[in-house]
Amino acid sequence: MRNYIHNPMKIEDTSFDIINNELNEMGKQVPQEFQHIIHRVIHTTADFEYADLLHFSDGVLQVIEQALNHGCNIITDVQMVLAGVNKKTLQNIGCQTYCFISDSQVESLAKEQSITRSMASIQFAKPYLPNSIVLIGNAPTFLFELLSAIENESLRPAAIIGTPVGFVGAVEAKELLLQQLNIPFIVSRGRKGGSPVAAAILNAILKQRMNQRA
Amino acid sequence: MRNYIHNPMKIEDTSFDIINNELNEMGKQVPQEFQHIIHRVIHTTADFEYADLLHFSDGVLQVIEQALNHGCNIITDVQMVLAGVNKKTLQNIGCQTYCFISDSQVESLAKEQSITRSMASIQFAKPYLPNSIVLIGNAPTFLFELLSAIENESLRPAAIIGTPVGFVGAVEAKELLLQQLNIPFIVSRGRKGGSPVAAAILNAILKQRMNQRA
Repeated sequence: MRNYIHNPMKIEDTSFDIINNELNEMGKQVPQEFQHIIHRVIHTTADFEYADLLHFSDGVLQVIEQALNHGCNIITDVQMVLAGVNKKTLQNIGCQTYCFISDSQVESLAKEQSITRSMASIQFAKPYLPNSIVLIGNAPTFLFELLSAIENESLRPAAIIGTPVGFVGAVEAKELLLQQLNIPFIVSRGRKGGSPVAAAILNAILKQRMNQRA
Repeated sequence: MRNYIHNPMKIEDTSFDIINNELNEMGKQVPQEFQHIIHRVIHTTADFEYADLLHFSDGVLQVIEQALNHGCNIITDVQMVLAGVNKKTLQNIGCQTYCFISDSQVESLAKEQSITRSMASIQFAKPYLPNSIVLIGNAPTFLFELLSAIENESLRPAAIIGTPVGFVGAVEAKELLLQQLNIPFIVSRGRKGGSPVAAAILNAILKQRMNQRA
């Protein structure tokens, strides 16, 4: 067997030490309140740009904490985000997870209307939205539709973790999320983001929550 | 409804035009043979560094094509990679997908030996490895163990798509993969990588294959 670290806790601790040291060397200070999230996103992506890209609305962590305390629904835009979140912990605290993109009805609706499956899936997500935490790791069109539903139908998720990625619509959708005042958010500004980023944000919150209660 | 592009093909085409233009503006030329893969990884990550980070062994695409023609096994290190690959297309060409990390036996073995679940999961993957395509998007320890199994037990996957990410072991595991001569590979050099990168590489290959046969 080759000479490398086998112990998962040691791998994680060493990784976070490296991240901390390199951020210090860069002279980057991240807000203490959000450090666990920012560090975990950097851990997930090996991309230090996230120290600047992540934006948090005032009090968003308190709102997410409350929602989790109430066993809120967790809704994701794509299966990759769902695969990435810590479902065991969510189950233990009574949170149900939902992702509608692979439903055959969603596919039919998308084909019929020449829209993305993400857009179509919002129609099916609506009943689960009130007081939920919505994670968008991939699809700007899901975020656009979600913001429309919030505006036009007064649907109120508890918070939105918005990190869709890409070259068409991602920047614009995230700027709309940053500008609205109704729903607390965590956003990766700019083109970057992705499913692992969205999942890492929720996982960091869940981990901190467990540590505080341990 | 807000004014944004709804049509998925148009979103994708526009995205690839932007990527192409910006690479040109940067004066970056990517090899024609691998352009579909490099552009799709940039599309997935919004990170132009991948124009330099991806490395391909000689003839790797021909080997992967042959393996797919034979309906090879597709093995992934984590569920997120499995969630990201185009399973419908794989199913259509007779490829089975496997990921062992969530098996309860894997978890027991990992706990028992204080090793990562990824390391433990290699034990269960072994019977499926010959002539498979292995995708590693997350776990350097999975790649280390895979390379050990190849070296010590003469197990021969057809090709390895190795894009584990992170600060401990990822660089080292990928350098070992780059240095070995037995198994064709596609690698994201350095710390960066991730599940969407591994999935995007296979999806780009599958898409090109479909286009060529259409």
